[in-house]
Amino acid sequence: MVGTIGIVGLGLIGGSLARRLAGRGVRVVAWNHRPHPYAQAEADGISCKATLTELVDAAPDALVLCNPLKAMPDILAGLRPLLEHRPEITLTDVGSVKGMVRDQAKAAGLGDRYVGAHPMAGNELSGWQAANPTLYDDALWAVTVDESTDYRRFLTVASLITDGVGNRIIVLDDETHDKAAAMISHMPHVVSTALINELTANPDRNVAAALAAGCWRDMTRVSLTDPDRTRAMVEEDALNVEVLLRRMAARLTDVADYLHDGDTSAVRAFFAAGDPFRTYRAETKAATGFTRAELEIPETGWQQTLLFSARRGEAITGFIHPRQAVIELRPAM
Amino acid sequence: MVGTIGIVGLGLIGGSLARRLAGRGVRVVAWNHRPHPYAQAEADGISCKATLTELVDAAPDALVLCNPLKAMPDILAGLRPLLEHRPEITLTDVGSVKGMVRDQAKAAGLGDRYVGAHPMAGNELSGWQAANPTLYDDALWAVTVDESTDYRRFLTVASLITDGVGNRIIVLDDETHDKAAAMISHMPHVVSTALINELTANPDRNVAAALAAGCWRDMTRVSLTDPDRTRAMVEEDALNVEVLLRRMAARLTDVADYLHDGDTSAVRAFFAAGDPFRTYRAETKAATGFTRAELEIPETGWQQTLLFSARRGEAITGFIHPRQAVIELRPAM
Repeated sequence: MVGTIGIVGLGLIGGSLARRLAGRGVRVVAWNHRPHPYAQAEADGISCKATLTELVDAAPDALVLCNPLKAMPDILAGLRPLLEHRPEITLTDVGSVKGMVRDQAKAAGLGDRYVGAHPMAGNELSGWQAANPTLYDDALWAVTVDESTDYRRFLTVASLITDGVGNRIIVLDDETHDKAAAMISHMPHVVSTALINELTANPDRNVAAALAAGCWRDMTRVSLTDPDRTRAMVEEDALNVEVLLRRMAARLTDVADYLHDGDTSAVRAFFAAGDPFRTYRAETKAATGFTRAELEIPETGWQQTLLFSARRGEAITGFIHPRQAVIELRPAM
Repeated sequence: MVGTIGIVGLGLIGGSLARRLAGRGVRVVAWNHRPHPYAQAEADGISCKATLTELVDAAPDALVLCNPLKAMPDILAGLRPLLEHRPEITLTDVGSVKGMVRDQAKAAGLGDRYVGAHPMAGNELSGWQAANPTLYDDALWAVTVDESTDYRRFLTVASLITDGVGNRIIVLDDETHDKAAAMISHMPHVVSTALINELTANPDRNVAAALAAGCWRDMTRVSLTDPDRTRAMVEEDALNVEVLLRRMAARLTDVADYLHDGDTSAVRAFFAAGDPFRTYRAETKAATGFTRAELEIPETGWQQTLLFSARRGEAITGFIHPRQAVIELRPAM
């Protein structure tokens, strides 16, 4: 049972979320730093507010901060006095890094009501004009909690996603999230960019570019989309990206050494090391559906129970009652 | 005017080539190490021969070696005595590395009639069953020559590709080809594999895999296709791949250092360095057609003239007469 949801920022992510929730019958109130999307948003059933004060006065159960990360400190500072006499409102966001946002929420005195969220949804576009409820089709969200998170606030955000948006969630601590995001997105974006930099520096770049086929196109696609947005994302997760870049540099140097030494068995071992991922991908691709099960969530240590579930490759699709989740069992490595 | 073409090996590449040539009215004779594709090939208008002797006796203008690279020394040794009294037959191939094949042709005493070729065509399949003439739609071929290449033999191979197959060519020396192929394919394949190895070694691999979206899928796609074929390709171009892996490792370490030091301006410069490639890609994508021009090919130094043309981003689409090519002017960096 999802109540009123407040959206801060009607860009690609926030606008798509607002339209999806409204389309699924959820009461949505929204504020944007400029009112240009308001006419269309109102036509979509989204109640637009002129100020953050009016947004808070609409008494949403949760406020979802969909503003750019760089605006987060200002938005949080603006919300703080408004939320002072409204302890029932839970705060969440959609940022691609989670530790930093929690720190900002704490710095604004709002840490006790914050639950992090990050939808695995997006494309190379931006802005309200690109907003589309189908952006969230079959999306997975990471929901991040810490040891002091109020379970009822977690449940507000979790059921907003499962019931309101119709998506799956995995529950993580901020560090696990930010390290995993560095692994499958932030670091690979740097690698992709390094590839096009290497080509650009190559004296035979036009010959090489002419010979480029599917491999090159696939591996450099993300380097072509807004490098400044990528740079910001990488810098916000700098510590984790740094560690992974050094590990990747060591792996590439190892292969260079094997090739230099003509060590074919070491090269063979390198090419075989990723087999668990190849098997996982083949199993995931071949699956026509996933078995569901129920997961009891204890009052004490619920964070760990949910983290271990995520590590086993499970995802939450809904709640039977507050302490019993429905989970989907997916292939695991 | 393309005469008779002999194909050695009816796998994905050779089978597709034979079917395409036959479909375009070229007389095609073929030999395969096992006769299982012969019935279908004959139905496609390909004249299949039981032995290499019979293939050579059909007097093709060019023999295209489409066998696996590892079989090349044996095939060349088998052809040598057969070709001794047939100096008019030109030898070419479709291998993904060119210096090694030329060395093997020379070692077999066939270097004087060898012209290298490498079509930028292929997919993750293999074998005659996957052979399809459309594999060559809009393909570019690299044709490789050295200072001793007989121009008439070059022209035999070049017109086989432009007139026979209906494709474009760029003319390179072996080293330029093998370095460029390492840049846009062989090295990136190693990088893609290193990414899945890093994930596999990650204690939170299931969490990271669950969060994976388009970036990860794109960048790891080539790591999933036959790692043993990739390994062979990398080892055949080991020297060039080694150099590029060390350069990539240095680039990734540089970014790690910038992030460690909080050097935002260096991170910005890193993300801007590939802008010439971004512009090139945007221009290529936006082009609705390419201007054509004529290129005079001198008797002396023709190899350099054609290499410089390739470096300017031009590709040969045909020949008006033996010393005058039609070229397509494409965007260049």
